[in-house]
Amino acid sequence: MRYIPLALERLTEQFARLPGIGGKTAQRLAFHVLSMTQEEASSFAESILEVKRSIRTCPICQNLTDEEICPICADPERDHGVVCVVADPKDVVAMERAREYQGVYHVLHGVISPLNRVGVDDIRIRELLTRVGEGGIREVIMATNPDTEGEATAMYISRLLRPLEIKVTRLAYGIPVGSQLEYADEVTLLRALEGRQEI
Amino acid sequence: MRYIPLALERLTEQFARLPGIGGKTAQRLAFHVLSMTQEEASSFAESILEVKRSIRTCPICQNLTDEEICPICADPERDHGVVCVVADPKDVVAMERAREYQGVYHVLHGVISPLNRVGVDDIRIRELLTRVGEGGIREVIMATNPDTEGEATAMYISRLLRPLEIKVTRLAYGIPVGSQLEYADEVTLLRALEGRQEI
Repeated sequence: MRYIPLALERLTEQFARLPGIGGKTAQRLAFHVLSMTQEEASSFAESILEVKRSIRTCPICQNLTDEEICPICADPERDHGVVCVVADPKDVVAMERAREYQGVYHVLHGVISPLNRVGVDDIRIRELLTRVGEGGIREVIMATNPDTEGEATAMYISRLLRPLEIKVTRLAYGIPVGSQLEYADEVTLLRALEGRQEI
Repeated sequence: MRYIPLALERLTEQFARLPGIGGKTAQRLAFHVLSMTQEEASSFAESILEVKRSIRTCPICQNLTDEEICPICADPERDHGVVCVVADPKDVVAMERAREYQGVYHVLHGVISPLNRVGVDDIRIRELLTRVGEGGIREVIMATNPDTEGEATAMYISRLLRPLEIKVTRLAYGIPVGSQLEYADEVTLLRALEGRQEI
């Protein structure tokens, strides 16, 4: 017998499919939706549909946008000669939070990962090569994550870019600002030592 | 400048309004919705609307249902002379999981809580009194949570039921099955001792 109405069970299942949401949390969220006003629930549902309806990728940098060209690519104040290559749209947000970078981006939408069956044609490497090949770009900054797959992807792309004779750089490794030396892992410390600079 | 499309930001805000969902998780969920197929997103949105559209409370026990009368109240096999009073629809699910209780329920939809401005008229106590007053009920089992507010609500209701001369009981307190004595708090141990039974 069903002790919970079918509609509530279905919504619980929908929530439980989201990443990091377990069964108990999903049920709590479903009950919360039930306690919303009609307007709140409608606007929640509409937001979900709107995301699928309005968002596309920028034809230049491949970042997500709801406009023809994303605001960063469309901004004449940015330096369009420097391209920062990131794996994910969230990384653009992280970089922009630093309020320092003045160049533009290229979003790969993933990293090369043979284990997850993501090959070189599954992420937007070709678009980057075409873009760099068209000229006007002085420097490509590889800003994929400093893990095995991010490293491999950065190495692979930098090798492809070598014949084009542009500057290819990588974000510096080191100890995170505000952290404590004793908690830094050995690899990070080694990289921090290698990359030491005169003061 | 917006580095994230407006629709994605709005959906992130919607998720962040849910209980227990912080900003980072909300963003992750919004990106997940973006990666869903059109059909998955539509069915998610539809589930939200359906919950608000189809769910009402059972006119007898006040539990949530999508039918005229909830499946438990409509079941002739259940003992309609025994009513278990719980605070929340989730508690009905918990009780039913024990697969032991054969009676019916009454869902209060809350507990009396002066601090949260929930008074006796804000939860479904009057409906319970009317129901018991109509006759045919032999026993009312108070199964509100064993915390201050649950206790106070149970005491308040049992006092109201006293003139009707029916049996009013409370769920037993004691140490949880499968737990360890050393981790039981003093109040629970005291109650377990008070409620000890011959074996």
